[in-house]
Amino acid sequence: MIQTEPASPSKATPTSTMRCLVKHHAGPELELMTDRSIPEPGPRDVRIRVTKAGICGTDRHIWEWDEWAAGRIPVGIVTGHEFVGVIDKIGSAVTKYEPGLRVSAEGHTTKGVDYNSRTGNAHIATDTQIVGIDRDGCFAEYVVVPEENVWPVHPSIPDKVAAVLDPLGNAVHTVMAADVSAKSVLVSGTGIIGLMAVTVAKAAGASRIFATDINPPRLALAKKLGAVEAYDAREGTGWIKDIKKQTRGEGVDVVLEMSGASTAIDQSFRALRAGGTAALLGLPAKPVTFDFNENIIFKGCTVFGINGRKMFETWYQMEELLLSGRLQLDDIITHQFPLEQYKKAFDTMITGEGIKVVLDIA
Amino acid sequence: MIQTEPASPSKATPTSTMRCLVKHHAGPELELMTDRSIPEPGPRDVRIRVTKAGICGTDRHIWEWDEWAAGRIPVGIVTGHEFVGVIDKIGSAVTKYEPGLRVSAEGHTTKGVDYNSRTGNAHIATDTQIVGIDRDGCFAEYVVVPEENVWPVHPSIPDKVAAVLDPLGNAVHTVMAADVSAKSVLVSGTGIIGLMAVTVAKAAGASRIFATDINPPRLALAKKLGAVEAYDAREGTGWIKDIKKQTRGEGVDVVLEMSGASTAIDQSFRALRAGGTAALLGLPAKPVTFDFNENIIFKGCTVFGINGRKMFETWYQMEELLLSGRLQLDDIITHQFPLEQYKKAFDTMITGEGIKVVLDIA
Amino acid sequence: MIQTEPASPSKATPTSTMRCLVKHHAGPELELMTDRSIPEPGPRDVRIRVTKAGICGTDRHIWEWDEWAAGRIPVGIVTGHEFVGVIDKIGSAVTKYEPGLRVSAEGHTTKGVDYNSRTGNAHIATDTQIVGIDRDGCFAEYVVVPEENVWPVHPSIPDKVAAVLDPLGNAVHTVMAADVSAKSVLVSGTGIIGLMAVTVAKAAGASRIFATDINPPRLALAKKLGAVEAYDAREGTGWIKDIKKQTRGEGVDVVLEMSGASTAIDQSFRALRAGGTAALLGLPAKPVTFDFNENIIFKGCTVFGINGRKMFETWYQMEELLLSGRLQLDDIITHQFPLEQYKKAFDTMITGEGIKVVLDIA
Amino acid sequence: MIQTEPASPSKATPTSTMRCLVKHHAGPELELMTDRSIPEPGPRDVRIRVTKAGICGTDRHIWEWDEWAAGRIPVGIVTGHEFVGVIDKIGSAVTKYEPGLRVSAEGHTTKGVDYNSRTGNAHIATDTQIVGIDRDGCFAEYVVVPEENVWPVHPSIPDKVAAVLDPLGNAVHTVMAADVSAKSVLVSGTGIIGLMAVTVAKAAGASRIFATDINPPRLALAKKLGAVEAYDAREGTGWIKDIKKQTRGEGVDVVLEMSGASTAIDQSFRALRAGGTAALLGLPAKPVTFDFNENIIFKGCTVFGINGRKMFETWYQMEELLLSGRLQLDDIITHQFPLEQYKKAFDTMITGEGIKVVLDIA
Repeated sequence: MIQTEPASPSKATPTSTMRCLVKHHAGPELELMTDRSIPEPGPRDVRIRVTKAGICGTDRHIWEWDEWAAGRIPVGIVTGHEFVGVIDKIGSAVTKYEPGLRVSAEGHTTKGVDYNSRTGNAHIATDTQIVGIDRDGCFAEYVVVPEENVWPVHPSIPDKVAAVLDPLGNAVHTVMAADVSAKSVLVSGTGIIGLMAVTVAKAAGASRIFATDINPPRLALAKKLGAVEAYDAREGTGWIKDIKKQTRGEGVDVVLEMSGASTAIDQSFRALRAGGTAALLGLPAKPVTFDFNENIIFKGCTVFGINGRKMFETWYQMEELLLSGRLQLDDIITHQFPLEQYKKAFDTMITGEGIKVVLDIA
Repeated sequence: MIQTEPASPSKATPTSTMRCLVKHHAGPELELMTDRSIPEPGPRDVRIRVTKAGICGTDRHIWEWDEWAAGRIPVGIVTGHEFVGVIDKIGSAVTKYEPGLRVSAEGHTTKGVDYNSRTGNAHIATDTQIVGIDRDGCFAEYVVVPEENVWPVHPSIPDKVAAVLDPLGNAVHTVMAADVSAKSVLVSGTGIIGLMAVTVAKAAGASRIFATDINPPRLALAKKLGAVEAYDAREGTGWIKDIKKQTRGEGVDVVLEMSGASTAIDQSFRALRAGGTAALLGLPAKPVTFDFNENIIFKGCTVFGINGRKMFETWYQMEELLLSGRLQLDDIITHQFPLEQYKKAFDTMITGEGIKVVLDIA
Repeated sequence: MIQTEPASPSKATPTSTMRCLVKHHAGPELELMTDRSIPEPGPRDVRIRVTKAGICGTDRHIWEWDEWAAGRIPVGIVTGHEFVGVIDKIGSAVTKYEPGLRVSAEGHTTKGVDYNSRTGNAHIATDTQIVGIDRDGCFAEYVVVPEENVWPVHPSIPDKVAAVLDPLGNAVHTVMAADVSAKSVLVSGTGIIGLMAVTVAKAAGASRIFATDINPPRLALAKKLGAVEAYDAREGTGWIKDIKKQTRGEGVDVVLEMSGASTAIDQSFRALRAGGTAALLGLPAKPVTFDFNENIIFKGCTVFGINGRKMFETWYQMEELLLSGRLQLDDIITHQFPLEQYKKAFDTMITGEGIKVVLDIA
Repeated sequence: MIQTEPASPSKATPTSTMRCLVKHHAGPELELMTDRSIPEPGPRDVRIRVTKAGICGTDRHIWEWDEWAAGRIPVGIVTGHEFVGVIDKIGSAVTKYEPGLRVSAEGHTTKGVDYNSRTGNAHIATDTQIVGIDRDGCFAEYVVVPEENVWPVHPSIPDKVAAVLDPLGNAVHTVMAADVSAKSVLVSGTGIIGLMAVTVAKAAGASRIFATDINPPRLALAKKLGAVEAYDAREGTGWIKDIKKQTRGEGVDVVLEMSGASTAIDQSFRALRAGGTAALLGLPAKPVTFDFNENIIFKGCTVFGINGRKMFETWYQMEELLLSGRLQLDDIITHQFPLEQYKKAFDTMITGEGIKVVLDIA
């Protein structure tokens, strides 16, 4: 049964400035500013007082200022896109939500006029802008988003979990696109999203989950989360034979590709049965040499490209999965730090000591 | 991990006669014959030495010789269609299986030339004949079926469960047709198949399961099997309001209608959200007065009629669900009796003292 | 190839009053007002100068002031919901569209916060209000709608057709939900939407279309539009046998139920093959006595309830079908009248002399 | 309406030998044998007296004895797998069909015990053997196939067309997998199957078909068959821009990849809209360097690998499409030769003078 508790309203009148993490120069790290002006919502926007925010792999790229970040991120931006908070102020034309509501938000914004935006697939709109990447983000006391992007958080979901609905949504989107119910599943890659995919797939009805990676502690965690086998891919391809042995000699019904590694992509398809389904989330660093004949065409396989989260079908599915009580996220959300300790937070995440790291902001 | 054990081959050379339960006259009950000739397989058939067989609600109709049975069942037939056993002899043109294999079988036979037979939907073929209804069945030491109907049983599945794959398959077919993964589900009617549907839906990834019936012990069992709420429908329609309260005011995503009761059908649709899906397995005793506008058209709902089991997609799904270790059947398969105690077995089932009752034959 | 032409901008500065058709009293007919104030768009609305508007069966109910209309329609409202026009003025918070754009609009409005609104199915939102029924409509020189409801009309689609995208969308939604490509189809009922469904189904790839009705001229038109057979249902059920004879003895793959007549619903299901699909759009006047066993459950059929148009998948599909050049609407849109001749227009539609009747407004 | 005519029974008692085309040595060409023993059907087989047979691209590989053929084809085999004929003799355990029936047959044979064989997807069975490749084929007066593989040919379909249902089925399978109804479609590659795909896609309801190739006469034929644009891919990638211009700047809904050329595969995905579907039939000669990120993942696309024909859903779809009267095959089946002129027949096909070439055998 679902227990309800009132959402906590914002406790104090905001002052005019706020603390936030800013990409202060065209180089590594972020800076904690304490005197950034609190943003005002536009007519169709809501302003949210942020409670907690998760650190994403994308934030690491921005922190480290790699080639992608240098080409995409405007200096001066507030970063961060995974969060939970409470609506604090609404724009003049806002009709959907009121201040005081505890919410998270989808970070992909779109004008809403293209094919995908108008057919339930705004996550792949042609004009997408992303909170914390193209516009100010949530590593801040306040963040502004369009009201269409708001997601009211169910009272039974704790803030720690609500702060990471965005990456959890990536896992849910991948799992649900592939349709794992009563099927054998290979999770290829047990990074943060891959580990989430293990517990999500199990909760969503996967019958047997196999996992591969090259990181023994993550593989061990995959087993703890429900994988029946967790193979170290550095030890050769015997694991493919083992999977086939456990699947009538045919291979798994579903592959969830979370690694983006070219070898893993190829091997995953080898472990997939004829007529099986692969959902691809992991991004290869560069184009891959791929055997379409053996991997897709002769076997009559189906492949789904996965980007973001369906707006908002994935969010509803995620809520149901959380309400089922079957998601095990405690071993995945390993650390929480106050905003002021953001350097330690990033360090914990980058070294791999932590898996999902959350910042306490309010 | 799946543990394998060798299937037990038939232990002795068969004599020429066998024990079996026969509809000996055009009236109630069955007779235990001990001198029935052991059937010979045709060129494309296999003969199976039966180990255990389940008693179905249909067998009860035959036992009680109700109007349907009197109009359909030929006197002299061996009844029964749920079973597990070991292949004992194969016909001259059989190519798929060998003697010694532990198997169950799909009871729907078809010539295999119509649209549905040739497109993976033989369960709704136009020329279906059913084992134990239109041809001799499995309440016998030996039963003959076409080799196309054979289902090799996974070594990890015990005989007790393998004997009831047929009715379990009804539940699996209904659940999988409706697609319950990460969805809220109402199971309407907690008879044998309804109770199986509760544990199947949970294993297949349903997030929250609600159940209704008018039998308190069965409702209690539904909760034990994983329903979050089990409502006594005799206490008014407050349960519909309660379901809506727990589902954003909208209703459940999925209805599995297992009762065939006209009131239950109508109320189930009232509890279904707009755009939801209903899978109908329960057979109303007569045509139902139904509000298509409110229940289906205005809400844009989808309805699936469910008959039998998909041949053989359902069987594969069932195997995966059993391999997941998440199906709880011990509280559903309540009794086993030796063939000779068949009167007690039927009595246990008919009085409701037992739920699923199994006969030990070999 | 698609030819483009510039949308015609509104030609003159609007005065402060306009002509429109108003439900002036709680009784039959409508009144032509000439001094109604031109409505102002709210912050998120657009105002459209109406060019042409279609008369719907719903408008006939309002005109005749039947029981449904008396219970639903507020006196004083401007009626009409099918139209094409040009955006004339936009609200202060509008971001999607500019004045001068030639548009139609979806008439179902919703706040956009429920499950279906947020998952691409706003047409079955729980809080729907309808233009011309719950708020002022388009039998007027100007109509105001939320910007989310706007549909830019492709330049190659003439105004006469653009004025009836709403009912055409009902037909497209029904046909596309049922998936008629390479399938045999029965269109049950050849009223306006049923006739549209014939030409839409043919354009969408139905292999063979059968039609039934009790109106010989409409049946003749169904054949002209592409039905291979058009049966007069008053002549008995021999047509079901004839359909089976032409479909391997099995029945049609798809039924599109457009009549709402209880006998037609039952007979349509009899003509549907096992495993077939029925899409139900026609609204029975009252609950129907229905044989679920024979019509849906034993045959393993799938049923879709159809309401409105998918927002906006149906609209895109409709545009593609119009661009294909295969829709034959000239025989369906039979009459056009200037707004001032609205009595003649309604009369032409109500007597059945016309099929779809369009009002010229600008 | 469908007109029926009796299938022509075999006219004469077969002698003991027959004419046929045999791969007589491990090298190019085939030999016409006149004294090959007429094959006897096994217990579950039917023997078919062949009327006409089509020459496939695969037969060309066998004729030319390329690397693939040298590695796969046993010397001494009778080749050919596309045909129509009349059942002449049935095996002792055959139950489905009788002599005298006009039939074609699916060339993929399987034992029928694996997952795909038992779930309506025997076309991707793990143990497939192919008529004319792994066992004697149909360039012969008589061919033997399992009765499960028989396809009774509708009386309204002429022998010339019935002889090429196998390759037409490849096109139908690809088109129907992608679901083209009311969608814009790019056919990438206008070889035999690509040209068939153009007419099939149009008949199946594609709204607008674009085609690319590097062969101007084939492109011209694609336009004649219904493509709105046919682009010469040697002239740069301006065609992608042109397609986007005609599709709201987004790209086509569906790609049917028929060329197997790596450049064409990449460019096709560039022309596909976000969220679109690609069905891949063309076989690249070797692994392809492929940008998964841009082509599949970021855009959230769906990809289907297509192999053979669904057994037998594709065959039913094909029959419906032929019954619709909308397939234009006369320009594709360009030549017919008597069996004795087989060298000329192969030459006509290999030089490209002909497209689909058929041998008259009976």
